[in-house]
Amino acid sequence: MAQNIYDDGAFFLGYSGLLRSVKGLDGAPEWPTLRAMLPPMRGKRVVDLGCGFGWFSRWAADAGAESVVGIDLSENMLRRAADETDTAVITYLRHDLDRLELPAESFDVAYSSLTLHYVADLHRLMTAVHQSLVGGGMFVFSVEHPIYTAPSNPTFVTDSSGAVSWPVDQYLMEGRRTTDWLVPGVEKYHRTIGTYLSCLHDAGLVLQTLCEWGPDALQVAEHPEWAVELERPQFMLVGARRE
Amino acid sequence: MAQNIYDDGAFFLGYSGLLRSVKGLDGAPEWPTLRAMLPPMRGKRVVDLGCGFGWFSRWAADAGAESVVGIDLSENMLRRAADETDTAVITYLRHDLDRLELPAESFDVAYSSLTLHYVADLHRLMTAVHQSLVGGGMFVFSVEHPIYTAPSNPTFVTDSSGAVSWPVDQYLMEGRRTTDWLVPGVEKYHRTIGTYLSCLHDAGLVLQTLCEWGPDALQVAEHPEWAVELERPQFMLVGARRE
Repeated sequence: MAQNIYDDGAFFLGYSGLLRSVKGLDGAPEWPTLRAMLPPMRGKRVVDLGCGFGWFSRWAADAGAESVVGIDLSENMLRRAADETDTAVITYLRHDLDRLELPAESFDVAYSSLTLHYVADLHRLMTAVHQSLVGGGMFVFSVEHPIYTAPSNPTFVTDSSGAVSWPVDQYLMEGRRTTDWLVPGVEKYHRTIGTYLSCLHDAGLVLQTLCEWGPDALQVAEHPEWAVELERPQFMLVGARRE
Repeated sequence: MAQNIYDDGAFFLGYSGLLRSVKGLDGAPEWPTLRAMLPPMRGKRVVDLGCGFGWFSRWAADAGAESVVGIDLSENMLRRAADETDTAVITYLRHDLDRLELPAESFDVAYSSLTLHYVADLHRLMTAVHQSLVGGGMFVFSVEHPIYTAPSNPTFVTDSSGAVSWPVDQYLMEGRRTTDWLVPGVEKYHRTIGTYLSCLHDAGLVLQTLCEWGPDALQVAEHPEWAVELERPQFMLVGARRE
């Protein structure tokens, strides 16, 4: 079962203050790249796994999706999502992605933003997603990059010469990582890229695109503080298809 | 054009002393995993890109390949390969993989061990490999893992508490890296995993397997000094197919 840290009051308060929580998709620098991996939404049946405040669900509805099911474990997030949504196209449901069952061949697009690294049993979830997609349906997701989730001390280190690096250790030791992010004791699951790809493959999903995301030159010009993100990728974006 | 460091006398002497040079495939800990990604060799037409001393070419011939073409840039290596080969099944050729052209639909298996990170134009080479394979043909290769090739200082660091880590920097800044390995000034090319996969995809090759290799428990028991390899992967093994 996934930890429900988003219903922790202090975590929720901290998360609510992040740029991506305040500004939504426009505050998420990887969003333009992820959006480009999605098919046109018009007429699509969409499921949003880890919908949070519902930013993507509302974007999909606005872009013409026929229906959107937004799923999250956090009551706090679903409450705010419902408050900010005024279309019947979207249905919000509370589920643990580690126990989620989805109806067969019911969706054209499955989407998940920065959620799967909270899921303990990725193989199970990928299989559930696969069977819920129609033939040709797409699964597009982002996760924290394995280089980002691996370290026991996930923070940049500056050496005596001023050089900055990201101290990777235990990369090939997969499993639960307990880190401090906004609050102490946030539980995530570290997996290698090889494991993400074999979970897709074993579930019957065919990789289309894998992007180790970093800011482009324009983004760095606008946000010089993002340049350090080029030292190690924070996000991995993946597009896959049910054949 | 790829640097021909293997014809540097000091480099060649150092390389010749490595376990994998003395013992061949049995001295390469990743070989059993790579071998498992290969189809049966019997009757196959095989090309070995960066054949070095010819260990794999001879293994393929012994395993029943119909023909094996071993290609390398180093005269030193090809000379020793020829000296140690006594079968007409194998042909050794000297070529720069950055300029290589291969006959169309002529091979069932293309193989490359720890060579592609010396190649400047991977997109070009992948395209050449693709068109040289028959439909259903396999391309199986290993490279130094991008986590291994990225850093400006590619060496383990031990902090004041004794913890070991691998200092990743400039991961998203692809291109030539000049490092000291056996001799100063060895030129390799760093690419992200995303780029390896998009080169395959753009060339028309379909990913089958991606393994971020580390020693298994038995190998660590036999070689306790390999345990540190679990902190970060040194090799990436890839299997792809021409559809």
